[in-house]
Amino acid sequence: MGNASIVGIGSTAFGRQEDRDIVSLAVEAAEAAILESGIDRARIGAVYLGNFIAGPLTGQEVLAGLVADNLGLENVPCTKVEGACASGGIAFRHGVLSVRGGGCDAVLVVGVEKMSGAPTEATTAALNCAMDNRSDGVTGLTFPGLFGMAWRVYEGRYGLGRDQVSAVVRKNKANGLNNPLAQMGRDLSDDEIAQSPLICDPMRLFDCCPTSDGAAALVIAGDGVAGEVAAPPVRVMASAQTRGAARIAGHGDLCSFDATVSAARRACAEAGIAPGDVDVVELHDCFSVAEIIDAEDIGLMPRGHGAGWAAEGRTAVGGDCPINPSGGLLAKGHPVGATGIGQLYETTLQLRGTHPNQVRDAAIGLTHNLGGTGVACTVNILGRADA
Amino acid sequence: MGNASIVGIGSTAFGRQEDRDIVSLAVEAAEAAILESGIDRARIGAVYLGNFIAGPLTGQEVLAGLVADNLGLENVPCTKVEGACASGGIAFRHGVLSVRGGGCDAVLVVGVEKMSGAPTEATTAALNCAMDNRSDGVTGLTFPGLFGMAWRVYEGRYGLGRDQVSAVVRKNKANGLNNPLAQMGRDLSDDEIAQSPLICDPMRLFDCCPTSDGAAALVIAGDGVAGEVAAPPVRVMASAQTRGAARIAGHGDLCSFDATVSAARRACAEAGIAPGDVDVVELHDCFSVAEIIDAEDIGLMPRGHGAGWAAEGRTAVGGDCPINPSGGLLAKGHPVGATGIGQLYETTLQLRGTHPNQVRDAAIGLTHNLGGTGVACTVNILGRADA
Repeated sequence: MGNASIVGIGSTAFGRQEDRDIVSLAVEAAEAAILESGIDRARIGAVYLGNFIAGPLTGQEVLAGLVADNLGLENVPCTKVEGACASGGIAFRHGVLSVRGGGCDAVLVVGVEKMSGAPTEATTAALNCAMDNRSDGVTGLTFPGLFGMAWRVYEGRYGLGRDQVSAVVRKNKANGLNNPLAQMGRDLSDDEIAQSPLICDPMRLFDCCPTSDGAAALVIAGDGVAGEVAAPPVRVMASAQTRGAARIAGHGDLCSFDATVSAARRACAEAGIAPGDVDVVELHDCFSVAEIIDAEDIGLMPRGHGAGWAAEGRTAVGGDCPINPSGGLLAKGHPVGATGIGQLYETTLQLRGTHPNQVRDAAIGLTHNLGGTGVACTVNILGRADA
Repeated sequence: MGNASIVGIGSTAFGRQEDRDIVSLAVEAAEAAILESGIDRARIGAVYLGNFIAGPLTGQEVLAGLVADNLGLENVPCTKVEGACASGGIAFRHGVLSVRGGGCDAVLVVGVEKMSGAPTEATTAALNCAMDNRSDGVTGLTFPGLFGMAWRVYEGRYGLGRDQVSAVVRKNKANGLNNPLAQMGRDLSDDEIAQSPLICDPMRLFDCCPTSDGAAALVIAGDGVAGEVAAPPVRVMASAQTRGAARIAGHGDLCSFDATVSAARRACAEAGIAPGDVDVVELHDCFSVAEIIDAEDIGLMPRGHGAGWAAEGRTAVGGDCPINPSGGLLAKGHPVGATGIGQLYETTLQLRGTHPNQVRDAAIGLTHNLGGTGVACTVNILGRADA
């Protein structure tokens, strides 16, 4: 089985882009990734596009084929993949599989979502497509509600101060200030966070990621192509995709999501590393408390210590366990289908040593997405070419 | 690269199932396929689910994970794939790839759609998600309109009598009478067809496939598992997925769809056969005229002869080129995401020799789906175990 590397990256800014349609966002990111790689587009043997809710929100499907057509790519298999918030990560994994053993010299993977412009109720209804609506959606549950419950369960188990959670928010919002692609970098005080509007007790406005438009794209290639490109290739060390319980009642414990635990274990085993070997992490902080739970599920710190590590600055860019130097979903934004590819874009910059919030000597990076109420997860691990 | 075989099949009836939700349809078909195969479900290493418009029509996504959760399958990668009407065929191809080279002993592939219960305008809008809505959808074009134009172009080029087209409709509707899964088998006269309500000139009601609910599922396995199962395995000889123009203006000629031509060529090359070697075909007759164009694009007969062959009975079950013995989309129905898997279900029965409209000595079968305005296509070729 051959190796796969990221040899080109592209991204739109994340944010509200009311005047842009979903196809043009995806094409912009993909065009940039292909141009950066410098490869002849005739060598691209497949297109995978991650997207979650273009159907309900934009009335546009067959996006993989549409985007390839707009890019003037050859007649190659073009597939949209969907797994809620893990859609981008799933697209990446299929690109990797196509290069490793699927006979493709290179593959284009794109993630895209267009969320602005729809009424709030329509957006909420579309996001709830990620729940089992026979059991959870009918109860009136929303995703802020799910993570509000998780917060309360975590608080009861380990203790969790408002200020500790706010440390996550402050860190990610501040990281976003430096990231030119980020939707809402902010310099926030604990008071501003604690006094922001209540969304779903105990979750406040700044605990929640924004509604975003955006696209990101990668060119993944085998060793033959990776030797020819301009930018230093970044190796794919592992790509894992797992499933967890589809309903709240299927989870033993809202302090942890099985799909993350198993995806991180499988990815680390494939890469031959331990979680502690990772130098930089982009994980799925759809809500502030999710960063704490996800980090523990990945195995970055002991259970019950995620909030403390944030408060102590250990998860800052200069800390010993840097998490979400991009700003994460909280500050960079969360155009759902694009998020996973956007994390890999950011991590590629880190491993090239050119990130605006560069982690010193970053050699191994990990990305993580969790979809629905924990039903779908991807964990990917990248390595610097010389690492 | 290992071989892949179909070792278990399952399907719901196709039709209007107002009281059923989309998850229960998919689970019913998948449970039947797993039970028929007799394999231990712990050997299933991945789930691919083909679906087109569950988001806009049912408000439910992450279907692959939901279905796996309901089936009690292990924690394996669960992926929804989408390519409009080719969604089911794309799911099948990814199942095949996972068995051939992806390290899976067996894979579950499911196709599902739930279309009834929504207002007609909502269904039409959802179906139009398969168009490039920046160029074609904005003109007011619908899919009956597209194939109405194709009919007129074909008529001008080769001549096409109403009775010749009606021969396709009569054949498929009659085939559907024998198929217990079919939504609307009918014994129709030419007059009944020609006098049915005009939908989009020259297309009349009986020229159009119905709105359908349904699901179909297959278990695909490698040689290790295929040797253990009860039913005779059916070999996957080829699986091709292609892309064509995404907009009407990108097509040189509405008498032909490039994506079908290239998919059929690639699939035949992979299988090492010519189109004339195929004993039975299930192709994408979303409209009567589509059967004629698709059959010629696949290479089953010379250009301009598709209608004549139907009128002469050559495409009947007992003819020398049997097409759509299941009743096709026109009579069996078209639950979009399920259709491609349903065709493979029907073709598996043919190659086992147990189809209700059995083609004598069928040893090689071909299935075909065309998505959108020709942007996505899959052609799969199956072979009898001893062929």
